[in-house]
Amino acid sequence: MTYKVEKLKVNYKTLEEFKRFKEYGLQELSMLEDLEANIIENDSDSPFYGIYFGDKLVARMSLYQVEAKFNRYFNPPQDYLELWKLEVLPDYQHRGFGTALVNFAKCFGLAIKTNPRVKSKEFWERMDFTPVEYEMERDLGENPLVWFPKEINK
Amino acid sequence: MTYKVEKLKVNYKTLEEFKRFKEYGLQELSMLEDLEANIIENDSDSPFYGIYFGDKLVARMSLYQVEAKFNRYFNPPQDYLELWKLEVLPDYQHRGFGTALVNFAKCFGLAIKTNPRVKSKEFWERMDFTPVEYEMERDLGENPLVWFPKEINK
Repeated sequence: MTYKVEKLKVNYKTLEEFKRFKEYGLQELSMLEDLEANIIENDSDSPFYGIYFGDKLVARMSLYQVEAKFNRYFNPPQDYLELWKLEVLPDYQHRGFGTALVNFAKCFGLAIKTNPRVKSKEFWERMDFTPVEYEMERDLGENPLVWFPKEINK
Repeated sequence: MTYKVEKLKVNYKTLEEFKRFKEYGLQELSMLEDLEANIIENDSDSPFYGIYFGDKLVARMSLYQVEAKFNRYFNPPQDYLELWKLEVLPDYQHRGFGTALVNFAKCFGLAIKTNPRVKSKEFWERMDFTPVEYEMERDLGENPLVWFPKEINK
């Protein structure tokens, strides 16, 4: 089964759907405040991508392209994607929604870094992500995992 | 009741006790590997502080002083403490262990930044931590909270 991954717009409907996700936090609250204060327009772009099942948002992630000059993870420095808030609603897990989102992220041709929640180790291994060498000053409480695009003819 | 907060040394006993905490991750694994490979000595310093109840480690946190030049949270730039992996074992919660650790961190005279786990909002409010203004490029999936030392005569 293939799922359609959609770029999510910031509007009241999306922000209401976000409340169902465990990792609802300062990012979503800040988007809501900006919308209410007319600092951002309805249907503005967001860093979120999601999958709808019927008309219900059941899976989502955030993606942001970090510029090479801010890169602390990849050598030589290169632009990469930070992936966060990957989450599938409990009733929709184990059906490939998370995999579909990560595969979507892999198709931008950039390396990816993520800092997964505890207890998702097997999932990220299946997705070919590997742990970085831990550096305290950089990583603090993070458990960074990285993925590199395949290179042709290698 | 007052609890004694101790700086934890890196040794096999401490690392074994760390396995009981939910947020066991790359940081602890890296310390274990370094110890096994003799890259660090037994009883080396660690960024962890903890509280023992009897001879059992029941609460812990990590603290690291971030230099002003790397500061992205406080204005004007100043050294501050990053606090992470604050955690109390389930059977020992609601007895003041977490509070004791945070109060200990407050006594260094530096501002503190932390990125708490979801669902600890009330605790951090009681501890006088406040949310920063969310900035996506900087905060990504974090929910940063900050605390400032009181100033005399203000």
